[in-house]
Amino acid sequence: MSFTLEDLDRIVRARAAASPDESYTAKLLARGVEKCAQKLGEEAVEAAIAAVTHDREELTAEAADVLYHLLVVLRAGGVELGAVMAELEARTSQTGLEEKASRSRKTP
Amino acid sequence: MSFTLEDLDRIVRARAAASPDESYTAKLLARGVEKCAQKLGEEAVEAAIAAVTHDREELTAEAADVLYHLLVVLRAGGVELGAVMAELEARTSQTGLEEKASRSRKTP
Amino acid sequence: MSFTLEDLDRIVRARAAASPDESYTAKLLARGVEKCAQKLGEEAVEAAIAAVTHDREELTAEAADVLYHLLVVLRAGGVELGAVMAELEARTSQTGLEEKASRSRKTP
Amino acid sequence: MSFTLEDLDRIVRARAAASPDESYTAKLLARGVEKCAQKLGEEAVEAAIAAVTHDREELTAEAADVLYHLLVVLRAGGVELGAVMAELEARTSQTGLEEKASRSRKTP
Repeated sequence: MSFTLEDLDRIVRARAAASPDESYTAKLLARGVEKCAQKLGEEAVEAAIAAVTHDREELTAEAADVLYHLLVVLRAGGVELGAVMAELEARTSQTGLEEKASRSRKTP
Repeated sequence: MSFTLEDLDRIVRARAAASPDESYTAKLLARGVEKCAQKLGEEAVEAAIAAVTHDREELTAEAADVLYHLLVVLRAGGVELGAVMAELEARTSQTGLEEKASRSRKTP
Repeated sequence: MSFTLEDLDRIVRARAAASPDESYTAKLLARGVEKCAQKLGEEAVEAAIAAVTHDREELTAEAADVLYHLLVVLRAGGVELGAVMAELEARTSQTGLEEKASRSRKTP
Repeated sequence: MSFTLEDLDRIVRARAAASPDESYTAKLLARGVEKCAQKLGEEAVEAAIAAVTHDREELTAEAADVLYHLLVVLRAGGVELGAVMAELEARTSQTGLEEKASRSRKTP
């Protein structure tokens, strides 16, 4: 059974309850939503740079950072991963460009 | 059975093979990795702003955009989602701050 | 006499008072500080991508976009360009790494 | 006489020639254009967050960081500040929305 984003989210939620001295997640959350959001932005820029410089190893690592920090931001912002996945499921049940035209939201 | 990131990735890969006229995903990929990477950066900034302004509905939508565009960037950059999840699994098998210290990579 | 950032700031301030129908600046400011901040983030990501892909023409254009949108964000955020320049002057009167160590702020 | 962006650019260019041990600028440039570009992206995200959270002191400091790192990126990317200012001057000699329509570039 493969490791999933839901598995990572469970770990993030468990560590969020730990001491900031023992967990990077707890430490980051203790610094507030601004810091968490800032880290998400940073990691996305790093992933973008890794992609355009065709560094696959770096892109793999940065994409992992983006996913992890996105989950931290969701936690800091009080949004459940399930709500995000439900949003994605709703979008993908429509065809792409049609949906984009109707809601000005991006979708596959 | 809930919708997963793997489900979204399957859809992204299927639509990548469609005509750019019919699929937003195909259109974005046809514009090149720079454009895909740029969109990822944009969406992460939007998610960050939604988080710090405490707009949960917007954060839900922007987080969905981040996940979707991250998958598009992975595809454009030739990286499999499985490799990213394996990286996350490997990181989370260590404790957080300890792992960060050893590899200077973020982890829960 | 060369065109300066102060000249651009004067133009931004003048156009901020125009009708949103007539001025892109006025239109952007009317959409609120979130939208202005989002544009700054986008343009910085585009400049970063142009830099790493060694596209000098694009970097020139995107750097111009960053400067312009930074001035719009300062206006939206109620900060004078003069205060930013005074901050830079104060930082550069110290030596670089020494200053960084003391204030954890970046400086030349 | 006020401190200008050209003054800062002169300092950046002077320190670029210093030893990476003595100058943050030289150290950053020695790490390559990817690192410089990444820092620009980070600082822009921080400025964006400071703006939307209405933290004027932080916005002042982060805007200073954006200007400084933009100059470092220009140097790393081989683009002169003068070329960027000339681009801005050319854009602002046209009216805003008209220019945007014609070139799909942002301008005041």
